[in-house]
Amino acid sequence: MQYAAVKDVLAGQYSAGETVTVRGWVRTRRDSKAGISFVNVHDGSCFDAIQAVVPSDLDNYSSEVQKLTTGCSVAVTGTVAASAGQGQDFELQASSVHVYGWVEDPDTYPMAPKRHSMEYLREFAHLRPRTNVAGAVTRVRHCLAQAVHRFFHQHGYYWISTPIITTSDAEGAGELFRVSTLDMQNLPKDDKGQVDYSQDFFGKEAFLTVSGQLNVEAFASSLSKVYTFGPTFRAENSNTSRHLAEFWMIEPEVAFADLNDVAKLAEDMLKFVFKAVLDERADDMAFFAERIDKQAISRLQHVIDNDFVHMDYTDAIEVLQNCGKQFDYPVAWGVDLQSEHERYLAEEHVGAPVILKNYPRDIKAFYMRQNDDGKTVAAMDVLAPGIGEIIGGSAREERLDLLDKRLREMDLPAEEYSWYRDLRRYGSVPHAGFGLGFERLVAYVTGMTNIRDVIPYPRSPKNADF
Amino acid sequence: MQYAAVKDVLAGQYSAGETVTVRGWVRTRRDSKAGISFVNVHDGSCFDAIQAVVPSDLDNYSSEVQKLTTGCSVAVTGTVAASAGQGQDFELQASSVHVYGWVEDPDTYPMAPKRHSMEYLREFAHLRPRTNVAGAVTRVRHCLAQAVHRFFHQHGYYWISTPIITTSDAEGAGELFRVSTLDMQNLPKDDKGQVDYSQDFFGKEAFLTVSGQLNVEAFASSLSKVYTFGPTFRAENSNTSRHLAEFWMIEPEVAFADLNDVAKLAEDMLKFVFKAVLDERADDMAFFAERIDKQAISRLQHVIDNDFVHMDYTDAIEVLQNCGKQFDYPVAWGVDLQSEHERYLAEEHVGAPVILKNYPRDIKAFYMRQNDDGKTVAAMDVLAPGIGEIIGGSAREERLDLLDKRLREMDLPAEEYSWYRDLRRYGSVPHAGFGLGFERLVAYVTGMTNIRDVIPYPRSPKNADF
Repeated sequence: MQYAAVKDVLAGQYSAGETVTVRGWVRTRRDSKAGISFVNVHDGSCFDAIQAVVPSDLDNYSSEVQKLTTGCSVAVTGTVAASAGQGQDFELQASSVHVYGWVEDPDTYPMAPKRHSMEYLREFAHLRPRTNVAGAVTRVRHCLAQAVHRFFHQHGYYWISTPIITTSDAEGAGELFRVSTLDMQNLPKDDKGQVDYSQDFFGKEAFLTVSGQLNVEAFASSLSKVYTFGPTFRAENSNTSRHLAEFWMIEPEVAFADLNDVAKLAEDMLKFVFKAVLDERADDMAFFAERIDKQAISRLQHVIDNDFVHMDYTDAIEVLQNCGKQFDYPVAWGVDLQSEHERYLAEEHVGAPVILKNYPRDIKAFYMRQNDDGKTVAAMDVLAPGIGEIIGGSAREERLDLLDKRLREMDLPAEEYSWYRDLRRYGSVPHAGFGLGFERLVAYVTGMTNIRDVIPYPRSPKNADF
Repeated sequence: MQYAAVKDVLAGQYSAGETVTVRGWVRTRRDSKAGISFVNVHDGSCFDAIQAVVPSDLDNYSSEVQKLTTGCSVAVTGTVAASAGQGQDFELQASSVHVYGWVEDPDTYPMAPKRHSMEYLREFAHLRPRTNVAGAVTRVRHCLAQAVHRFFHQHGYYWISTPIITTSDAEGAGELFRVSTLDMQNLPKDDKGQVDYSQDFFGKEAFLTVSGQLNVEAFASSLSKVYTFGPTFRAENSNTSRHLAEFWMIEPEVAFADLNDVAKLAEDMLKFVFKAVLDERADDMAFFAERIDKQAISRLQHVIDNDFVHMDYTDAIEVLQNCGKQFDYPVAWGVDLQSEHERYLAEEHVGAPVILKNYPRDIKAFYMRQNDDGKTVAAMDVLAPGIGEIIGGSAREERLDLLDKRLREMDLPAEEYSWYRDLRRYGSVPHAGFGLGFERLVAYVTGMTNIRDVIPYPRSPKNADF
């Protein structure tokens, strides 16, 4: 038995006349008056299903083949043949159909072949990968992840798995999930009636990480070029189409690099992974362009073809103030830009991705490198047309005295950061990095508007099912 | 300024006479009587440092160069030259040395150049990547991770990120970390005085995952060939050299596959990644063979060169009972094998990796496929000489009636597994998969004896520092 993936048969990797067996799930079945059935079999290896032409003289034709419905699992053995129909070059002339599993009740099968809303599909996260849209998202997501790893590997970066559970709060901000094994019905308390975390698993209060950046800086301070790619968490009660409680993040960190170096790295990386998707997942991207977002392909091609425009935050404020457009949120030097501002800059003012640099110090994190003007830090955001901020990064403050001053000003406890300060006490180097939310990248590439539809099992307030 | 990675200079990618700048950290400095200094600069791009020959006529020779100590960060510009010394083909004839950062007090620098114990290094997880051993582990770890992704990608598998936070307990076993945002000082209680998790972030009691297997089975039931590679957790109070509270796991899951198919997949994957390490990290592996474990290279080569031996659990019990060896734990049909048994089989009886198959049903998880004998399940363990069990896998029970029977026998609530049961109600297919603990793989490859030394920031009872 020669088992073949549907993608290989459709790609012509088997000659006409060769006998192969494909295994997968029935997408559709149509019986012709001439006494044959057309059964489309999908195995997830590519976007398309393959058409099997099943003659009525098979032993199980009336007992099984004619009872096949969407979702049934089958093995079809047949000879590869040039397809007369439209759309595909090859089909199978079936000589046997084996049924592995039936659909219990086709009428109530949750993935029955009709239009389902994205909200409905989310209720069936375990079955939605059987749909065109969730299957295509999964393959594109895989392609992007592989391309990210390949990009960094080819450029001499080492992957670092920073910790998920941590007793330190990376940015002194953000709401955290607590990780504990304490008996909640009988919490141990200390003399003062406070919960006694010394009896907890880690001997301290512990949380899920919000970023691997501080941890990975230690590796940049020894291996020079490193990156993380792992899950991060936010316990924010944000029920929006852009927020997840659990999401994956990519965080390169580069020793001896300044802000412009990592701005270039961000541009190179985005172009590399977009090109990979267009090259490797043309089938799925054609689907997204047809059904989800007309710009899905052209948007990526536009990013690939154009240089990113660098702009100072201060200049951007001026542009926004003088553009004559009415924004919901007022613009003044010192404010954090809103999505409407970011999208105006990228979409209308520039018409290409914009790298905004040198933000006011007071709206940014303690670790960002202070510029000589005393007002700004070497931070950047990459703003992409159609989505706004997709990457945030900065040079890191490598000068111990300036870092300590900032910790004091922001009322952060220096002792909590003693190991981070060590990196500045021993052979400190200029370094910079950025963070890219992986799901925002997948959403941007596919045109999917809700981030819960681009991760296998989304976690959000009141939902960690499956 | 032409910046060069040390690995590229040492590999001869620059011609003798070319001027380059390398940036990194000083490993050693030696001053000759002839008035020149030899400064070894390491940038983490490979195992070796490059030797810079620094003449005394540089402006900052006495003010800075002669004060360089281990750990100082520098940029050295110079011409590439054939090296007269032993060990390396190239060195740098320095024309300038720029110092980025000093070591605050070389006498108390925790990574001062002397022998440090592994236990000591663990206390400095943020600085230990600067040592030979931790740097080599990091590069090999990266190489293995890349090779795993590459192997599955090339074989048509899609990467699935299964959830980290979950409200279901994958195996009905194992101690769990709770994830919560409830105010521990003021826990909400229900009428019966029980903690009211409906007020918690996810509206239910939630935990960190112990395995992505059940979740990824849903994707195998639609995309056919998939794998996970992500963090998993065990809240076991095990302070051993083989256990971590947080570790990474690789879990392929294959539709239409049986136990022998995934046994072959495991063998192919291990051989592929071992070969990648020997090809790509010869420098680091030479270090491990020299300093950590003499067999580090030959062990991998031996696995690559030999077929894995398949053996039934029942036959293995007979072998162990008749081998004349005295074991600490008695051997009888039905017992779970101990490390001493596994190592005897792999190291002494076979002398190659062994795949043990068809274990007694009663010592295995509910989801494993029941064999026709009524006593065993289609489970396997891959036992490797020198470490014992490295992979565990099974065919999954795809027959709903048999799965339900097993859930009842093991007193597991069917309603908790309703989505998992759905996969059997709608187009069920035979499928199988396995799990590989990534840190055990890294430990096996490097010969490192404590698993805490092969992950950047180990988490164990009473320790989640950094």
